[in-house]
Amino acid sequence: MTLTINTDRLLAELHHLARITDCPPTTDTSLPAPTQAVTRIVFTPRDLEARAWLKQLATDTGFTVREDAVGNTFLRWEGSDPTLGAVGTGSHTDAIPHAGMYDGTVGVLGGLEAMRSLKESGFKPRRSIETLMFTSEEPTRFGIGCLGSRLLGGVLDPDAADALPDRLSETEADAPKGLTLQQVRAQAGFTGSLASVKLASDYYDSWVELHIEQGPLLEREGIDLGIVTNIAAPASYRYTVEGFGGHAGALLMPDRRDALTAASELILAIERFTREANAQSAAAGQTGVDSVATVGKVDIFPGAVNSVPSRVQFMLDIRDTDVARRNNSMTRLRAEIDRVSRERGVKITEEVINSDEPAISAPKILDALVASAKAENASYRMMVSRAYHDSNFMARVAPMAMLFIPCRHGVSHRPDEYSTPEQIALGTRVLARTLAALAS
Amino acid sequence: MTLTINTDRLLAELHHLARITDCPPTTDTSLPAPTQAVTRIVFTPRDLEARAWLKQLATDTGFTVREDAVGNTFLRWEGSDPTLGAVGTGSHTDAIPHAGMYDGTVGVLGGLEAMRSLKESGFKPRRSIETLMFTSEEPTRFGIGCLGSRLLGGVLDPDAADALPDRLSETEADAPKGLTLQQVRAQAGFTGSLASVKLASDYYDSWVELHIEQGPLLEREGIDLGIVTNIAAPASYRYTVEGFGGHAGALLMPDRRDALTAASELILAIERFTREANAQSAAAGQTGVDSVATVGKVDIFPGAVNSVPSRVQFMLDIRDTDVARRNNSMTRLRAEIDRVSRERGVKITEEVINSDEPAISAPKILDALVASAKAENASYRMMVSRAYHDSNFMARVAPMAMLFIPCRHGVSHRPDEYSTPEQIALGTRVLARTLAALAS
Repeated sequence: MTLTINTDRLLAELHHLARITDCPPTTDTSLPAPTQAVTRIVFTPRDLEARAWLKQLATDTGFTVREDAVGNTFLRWEGSDPTLGAVGTGSHTDAIPHAGMYDGTVGVLGGLEAMRSLKESGFKPRRSIETLMFTSEEPTRFGIGCLGSRLLGGVLDPDAADALPDRLSETEADAPKGLTLQQVRAQAGFTGSLASVKLASDYYDSWVELHIEQGPLLEREGIDLGIVTNIAAPASYRYTVEGFGGHAGALLMPDRRDALTAASELILAIERFTREANAQSAAAGQTGVDSVATVGKVDIFPGAVNSVPSRVQFMLDIRDTDVARRNNSMTRLRAEIDRVSRERGVKITEEVINSDEPAISAPKILDALVASAKAENASYRMMVSRAYHDSNFMARVAPMAMLFIPCRHGVSHRPDEYSTPEQIALGTRVLARTLAALAS
Repeated sequence: MTLTINTDRLLAELHHLARITDCPPTTDTSLPAPTQAVTRIVFTPRDLEARAWLKQLATDTGFTVREDAVGNTFLRWEGSDPTLGAVGTGSHTDAIPHAGMYDGTVGVLGGLEAMRSLKESGFKPRRSIETLMFTSEEPTRFGIGCLGSRLLGGVLDPDAADALPDRLSETEADAPKGLTLQQVRAQAGFTGSLASVKLASDYYDSWVELHIEQGPLLEREGIDLGIVTNIAAPASYRYTVEGFGGHAGALLMPDRRDALTAASELILAIERFTREANAQSAAAGQTGVDSVATVGKVDIFPGAVNSVPSRVQFMLDIRDTDVARRNNSMTRLRAEIDRVSRERGVKITEEVINSDEPAISAPKILDALVASAKAENASYRMMVSRAYHDSNFMARVAPMAMLFIPCRHGVSHRPDEYSTPEQIALGTRVLARTLAALAS
């Protein structure tokens, strides 16, 4: 079949969504255009505005809308046999502070565009097709990534989820303090038990997510598409370092138990261990780039120029395609924590935020993606996802695969995150062909 | 002469002032009592409340009050010969976030109590005696310590001072953005040119400041009083590290230019250089504790758990009794900055906030302090001030010395900062004797 999508409509919608943001357009002219800075944190007025707009788009096209207790939003095109498991696609529309306009949104608006184009082309699906917008893929507000998909996949305890503290007040001084997810979602209009969110294992017959690569490989190799065979195993931890504070002038160096210098040693240690793990893998003939570790957030108490830090809290995000290799780096870090605690006389505690398994893609969906790529005469490569996606958790309840398009310089979570209209259009066409094949 | 002070009145006033705070009483029961947490930032409602109360105390006793254009407040007891240079004492009442109740306040309320006790004892000063409350000894709000005394000492350009940005909005999201000292002081009721603040070199015939040690030496050695022969040379710098941000999962380690790991290397480097400078001095038979360096404040951008830091800004506070030794550590740090910039591909810029000379005490005031200590049968030692004080800048326009009392465990800038009523009373009596001797 020949299949066309409405690229102008899709791009116009991506740019419209980008303007629903809590930060002003970036003025940094050193960034390549477009430089729309996007901040859209779950359940803020901007997020609710984006949700309302998205639901309107779906109903305008004759799709039905369903929202679950945590706000995951299902845009459904009923198939000729509604009793069959559906074919699902989708992604997220929330964005971390000062991020870009393509991460997640391409998979949501691209999924919707694929359904619309198929409908307009006269295609009649046997299985129902859904585009799903996940709640809070980003950990910004509740401290854990993929909140919505974890609940859909049944890998997060509903009561524990409802008790998650709202961290918005940490960055927004005028935000109410001490709220939990249960209160925040209720204020946003999402009530009912989170236990009801988990999907039955026959709800989706197959699941496929379209996403920008968030890495440099496709662009570097000049390849049109990445077909994801597995998703790296993500984990995140919160560390609290408790030392001894005092006056920056009067507390003598021999008497110090500085929480920040102790934390600095750990921040450098995990970087070193991860680089060494990659080097060992490279020496063993593997890619040697599959381990990544990041400390992106540090809070210092009291945080005054002339006061020795008495307490430091920092977050570690560590991911690997190989759980054993990731665990080995963590074992080395914990040994380093023991050494630093002992030598510096500080107390260091670890809190596991999440520690997830990798996900493996389903052959039948990989086959459908490959066939669709060939039908579009697109070049493709099989690859690993090192970014972590809702599909990682959808894999627990459905056969899963992902489709990547290139993004400029491999950057994301930045205003200059960018994929070309041609790359977005091709990815959406291949997604549409794949959905059609899986739904027939 | 026998001299008594009203210790109960002084302590009641110290505790009253401590309750004029922007943070609630500390509930941390692991801290030894009293655990009053004090936050009193210059020109906030709490600071203005404290100023009004202090001025009322002075006028109630028949002293006159004068405030200059930056809010330095002079409580004056007119002498029999007002044409002579005055004898000055005093300190500050502002407090960094979550600090204690004795830093600075002992010198202000102790100075006032000394004047009141002398007056009640029938003493008639020949020279006028003043207790001075300095504006913004702490750098919290305007990024530079000893704001008021720098202007009194003529070591800060008045126009540059008026242009200092108000940093309160960095910590208080609801505080107005983009204000300068000129606007903030005007809102607080202090107008007029800052050029008028500088004191004539004959305004004070002598200056002496009573303060808690903020160090462990007096307590450790069981000595009642420290008589300060010189004040360590303080300097502070702001460093901006600009790297390359991106997604914590997808930005591969070989492609990273992480601003936080680069900053962590520098935070550890300056700690190492300072410890090595102390070790060299110890090897040369000196104390080996006179160099201190602290990074107490770090800001990370974008500051998200799953985003590689693209920019980090941190403040360095470095002090030494020996300017050459301090400069040597800074030279080593700058070499390290070059190495880290080169090896990590980040851009690192340095901004000097202040870089001050040490101050030397005046023999005639040291003699008066020693005589007063002996008259009170108090043990004392001559010592260096490693904390940095308004007296450091008063030394530019007046013969200066300082008097220290012990503080528990040498800690300050913390809620558990503490000196005993006996220590405060003794320091105040010795101050009163010294003021009387210098004013006769």
